[in-house]
Amino acid sequence: MDGQTGLNVAVVGATGAVGQQMIETLVKRDFPIKKLVLLSSARSAGKVVTVNGKEHVVQEAKPESFEGIDIALFSAGGSVSKELAPEAAKRGAIVIDNTSAFRMDQEVPLVVPEVNEEDVHTHKGIIANPNCSTIQMVVALEPVRKKFGLKKIIVSTYQAVSGAGAAAIEELKEETRAILAGEAYEPKVLPVKGADRHYQIAFNAIPQIDKFEDNGFTFEELKMINETKKIMHDQSLQVAATCVRLPVETGHSESVYFEIESEGVTANDIKELLKDAPGVVLQDDPANQVYPMPADCVGKQDVFVGRIRRDLDNEKGFHMWVVSDNLLKGAAWNSVQIAESLVRLGVVGQK
Amino acid sequence: MDGQTGLNVAVVGATGAVGQQMIETLVKRDFPIKKLVLLSSARSAGKVVTVNGKEHVVQEAKPESFEGIDIALFSAGGSVSKELAPEAAKRGAIVIDNTSAFRMDQEVPLVVPEVNEEDVHTHKGIIANPNCSTIQMVVALEPVRKKFGLKKIIVSTYQAVSGAGAAAIEELKEETRAILAGEAYEPKVLPVKGADRHYQIAFNAIPQIDKFEDNGFTFEELKMINETKKIMHDQSLQVAATCVRLPVETGHSESVYFEIESEGVTANDIKELLKDAPGVVLQDDPANQVYPMPADCVGKQDVFVGRIRRDLDNEKGFHMWVVSDNLLKGAAWNSVQIAESLVRLGVVGQK
Repeated sequence: MDGQTGLNVAVVGATGAVGQQMIETLVKRDFPIKKLVLLSSARSAGKVVTVNGKEHVVQEAKPESFEGIDIALFSAGGSVSKELAPEAAKRGAIVIDNTSAFRMDQEVPLVVPEVNEEDVHTHKGIIANPNCSTIQMVVALEPVRKKFGLKKIIVSTYQAVSGAGAAAIEELKEETRAILAGEAYEPKVLPVKGADRHYQIAFNAIPQIDKFEDNGFTFEELKMINETKKIMHDQSLQVAATCVRLPVETGHSESVYFEIESEGVTANDIKELLKDAPGVVLQDDPANQVYPMPADCVGKQDVFVGRIRRDLDNEKGFHMWVVSDNLLKGAAWNSVQIAESLVRLGVVGQK
Repeated sequence: MDGQTGLNVAVVGATGAVGQQMIETLVKRDFPIKKLVLLSSARSAGKVVTVNGKEHVVQEAKPESFEGIDIALFSAGGSVSKELAPEAAKRGAIVIDNTSAFRMDQEVPLVVPEVNEEDVHTHKGIIANPNCSTIQMVVALEPVRKKFGLKKIIVSTYQAVSGAGAAAIEELKEETRAILAGEAYEPKVLPVKGADRHYQIAFNAIPQIDKFEDNGFTFEELKMINETKKIMHDQSLQVAATCVRLPVETGHSESVYFEIESEGVTANDIKELLKDAPGVVLQDDPANQVYPMPADCVGKQDVFVGRIRRDLDNEKGFHMWVVSDNLLKGAAWNSVQIAESLVRLGVVGQK
């Protein structure tokens, strides 16, 4: 890193949970970096982060920080992205934004490389990284959509607390410890930081992620619904979601029901298809109790799929169970993958 | 209890988690008991259980134990029920069986009093208590079925470990403690006692409850599918289920999608209906973050329903979130309710 050739890369939110994973993933993938610039809020500026044996001082992110930057990975919250992503783009950087700030903006491609890599060509300076729970679902469903057509999705999620940030992880651990010791604990973070009410997550399940819309759905559920249609370029696709937070540190799981267009497709056909699908690892052997679980997916980049079976009433309906590390494929890895797509497709040129 | 008038009641499996709840519920409901007989396996026989201030020595359950018994509540495992329930019935007792041994037997009514109380009249000595996850779902859906017709159900469950017995509760606690302390822990109980493989439940989600069938569904899922049709007397009802075990001690949650027959029904219509439905408590006020959660339902007899909203694509489709104490409405309370129905409908007469 910081090599003679390569790209100038900025990471905004470098000290956060996802930012750290982004840096680690860039290193692990040996991404061609000429200069690495680590940025954060004023509060975290000055911290020293060691990358590949070299110390980097984290600087406060300002519009000028993006002069000469080729790719800027943003993961510092929606308000930071709204303010600084256009500034970075104005200065010639391509922003890969991990917040929800621009995802539904018609000018901004929303990209999961296994699904719609070519959409990076349409960027106008900003590319959005989808919501974590959306990404793993579309990776698992895109091969099905392409081969058999996709009509309807009904998903119920089982989401880890790390999606709500480092404070939520701390809350889960401290609260669990307190409950086991018979001590009181006052929740302050979950389900939504800054909301009026906070609830126990330890040994519980909270059917709220993000705030509620007037139609009774949460923003998280609407993200899954709207982002899926945008990524798959199909506004007629029917999508419904129920999003639930669990006492799991990392790894989102999803119970996915889907209906296809083709007739006569068997569960084995779906399994055969997903066995060789990009980014997917099939773990589906009920006889030997093989299926994906969040505890097994942590630190892995893949989307794990199992429990594939045909509905007993609808021969075009299928059920499956999809698990992935929400901080990697759900965030950092998908962002770095988009950066790799930009290089491979020649959208950014190495200097 | 042990009053001058009333019924002779036996509890089989009196020392187990559900058996204890059955006894407590009988006391709490002031059920008219003349004589209470506590029975168990040979292993637990001789234990002393105090009921309403009076000590009862638990006896080994044998065919002769049921002489003179009016109602026998069974919760000691399927093999005990298979062996002894017919013996009890032969001796004139009405068995209320909490195992899966007789649920799908055509001669045996499967009863949730809020739904099909009248079915107790058809008993031939044995009445079955449905699976815990089935009960709470049908209590929430029966008012909808009666008023608007019910066509299809797709449910994903979030089930507590207490459904797998006291050893599973112990495993969840010990394993959680070990993981927080950074110690190793070897799972021995979950997902299925006696299965080849056991998996970590702490900070995890296991998409297996009970064993697998050849069609890829688990027995637990098939129980929900088949029992729902039988209880609602509708074999044409489409039901699909995905059952998942969570690190929750008590309280099952369910993400339920359902399609009705009637047109023009709104989410508010469903809420109005469930507000006054028997056995249901509506907790549905998203603006104030009011929805059911397992941590809040423990020790309560009701079925809690919230997050009711209409599907965005199908105007006859709705989503809701259903939570109940799996040991109470899911087991002990429903069994005692059946006993109360037997009395109220005059199927058994007090002596």
